Amino acid sequence: MRITALAGGVGGARFLRGLLEHLATTRASDRAQVTVIGNTGDDITLFGLRVCPDLDTILYTLGGSVHEGQGWGRSDESHHVAVELAALGATPQWFSLGDKDLATHIYRSQLLGQGVPLSAVTARLADRWGLPEAGVTLLPMTDAPVETHVVVTEAGEQRAIHFQEWWVRHGAAIDAERFVVAGLDSAAPAPGVLEAIRNADVVLLPPSNPVVSIGIILGVPGVRDALRGTRAPVVGVSPLIGGRPVRGHADICLETVGVESSSAGVAGLYADFLDGWLVETDDAMQEPRPGSGPVLVRRPLLMSSVQAAADIAGAALSLASQLAAKKGGESRP
Amino acid sequence: MRITALAGGVGGARFLRGLLEHLATTRASDRAQVTVIGNTGDDITLFGLRVCPDLDTILYTLGGSVHEGQGWGRSDESHHVAVELAALGATPQWFSLGDKDLATHIYRSQLLGQGVPLSAVTARLADRWGLPEAGVTLLPMTDAPVETHVVVTEAGEQRAIHFQEWWVRHGAAIDAERFVVAGLDSAAPAPGVLEAIRNADVVLLPPSNPVVSIGIILGVPGVRDALRGTRAPVVGVSPLIGGRPVRGHADICLETVGVESSSAGVAGLYADFLDGWLVETDDAMQEPRPGSGPVLVRRPLLMSSVQAAADIAGAALSLASQLAAKKGGESRP
Repeated sequence: MRITALAGGVGGARFLRGLLEHLATTRASDRAQVTVIGNTGDDITLFGLRVCPDLDTILYTLGGSVHEGQGWGRSDESHHVAVELAALGATPQWFSLGDKDLATHIYRSQLLGQGVPLSAVTARLADRWGLPEAGVTLLPMTDAPVETHVVVTEAGEQRAIHFQEWWVRHGAAIDAERFVVAGLDSAAPAPGVLEAIRNADVVLLPPSNPVVSIGIILGVPGVRDALRGTRAPVVGVSPLIGGRPVRGHADICLETVGVESSSAGVAGLYADFLDGWLVETDDAMQEPRPGSGPVLVRRPLLMSSVQAAADIAGAALSLASQLAAKKGGESRP
Repeated sequence: MRITALAGGVGGARFLRGLLEHLATTRASDRAQVTVIGNTGDDITLFGLRVCPDLDTILYTLGGSVHEGQGWGRSDESHHVAVELAALGATPQWFSLGDKDLATHIYRSQLLGQGVPLSAVTARLADRWGLPEAGVTLLPMTDAPVETHVVVTEAGEQRAIHFQEWWVRHGAAIDAERFVVAGLDSAAPAPGVLEAIRNADVVLLPPSNPVVSIGIILGVPGVRDALRGTRAPVVGVSPLIGGRPVRGHADICLETVGVESSSAGVAGLYADFLDGWLVETDDAMQEPRPGSGPVLVRRPLLMSSVQAAADIAGAALSLASQLAAKKGGESRP
């Protein structure tokens, strides 16, 4: 079974960890190949080092070395370098990187500087975290540098700041006018991305941010068409419970792009390719008429443990399996 | 009093620390301005980060944060990043950088990447370590990237390796055919370097490696001429005791360039500008005939403590003061 997932950071990583757990407990690991297409719009150059927050969160989570409390970064982390960088007056000071985490960024930047594409760098990092042994291939959505910027208005002046500055430094508390994704229009999908969607048996959309994570991946030229064209059922997990994200600021992001912060609103963003949609048990979304929207499954969606995430992933695969029969061999026009 | 010193790493740094101690105890600090011209031929790019070992050793030593046992690197250092870099398979693995030390290299590389010249980067690092307050200006010999390579023969094959690989990885135990300094011929002296030599009241040559430290600085176009032309007395401290360096491999370096490993041999390398020469009490060097070589002073040269180094620096200044009267206002032809 070829499973392809589009993923952002913490939510995506936890869902994927659940997926692997589900595959292991159902003894499907041997037969499953999981390809993850990761968002790189959050990427940022800090202290001259290239940081890929979403890819790293997936690597650390699947590698068993993520800081569980934070959801990102390394467990058992120290901050000796960051303290010294602050003493040197290095900027920015609103983004602190742990020592072990920094090694990832140093290594990645070294290889990128030697002309190694991000996808090849990511493959080397994936080796470090045992992803191949777990049957997982992690692909960045593109090898091109892409950066999500946020147009904000401060003191009457409009300016664009990096997504991380808006998200991390300001906690998304500055009104965003819109998102501008530098480099996205001309970003070629990384090798294997379109094939992984086209040739999948199942495509999954984890409960990642629909605007600044999955939405960015969808903007890579060719990705949306591949999703519309794939024979695989596309099943998503709503990132909203009661109209609010469990963590992060998906509600603010949706508002910024003029979409209601609801499971129905998010499903609307995926309307042209979404076959199945998992929503929280008491979600307000109405069942679409057959053929006019995704098949809904209502169930608990809080990933309160690895097992809870595994159960959600299992439910998504189960729905996909039902839909696969329906979808038959036909691709959409 | 304007004191200008040419310096390599550990030996140079310890001498300079002694010099500052001497100036402080003789209450000459207020009137003294010390300009240090540091060797950058040892510089190397490791893990994509620009490392300047000699400049950093001077910064850490004068800043009171050097690892006394090693003579280089930071005290109270940890190695979390290096451990993780090794786990990632990052190369080279023969050069381990501590966490605090890495912050220096990250910061420097960030600024260099932004187009800030090395001299300006070094000035910012010097601020961190309080050098301006101590009356010290640290200048790299040049802003151009210069790297000392060593031509070695292994298994019958001749190849050039970076100086650090020869020195650190191989402990200078592979026969060196010669040194090749990439970029030196066209390296302009950093702003202030020639002026610091020309306008000095005293020029000092600390007991640094005469071939791969001071010898490299002397190869920067204009530096040697400035030394020949300065009105200041030039006083050096022999790096050899009993024909052997106290640490490092100056004897092997001298042998490589075909010069006897002796205080006389080293003085010969400086013959065209050296006015005074401190050698160890029982040094075998013969007193040159007046006018045909430097004025010799014999005294203990082991920098076994800060005070011992201060006494040596005091002796060098004292000799310079005698020579200044002799040298008068005349510059050499």
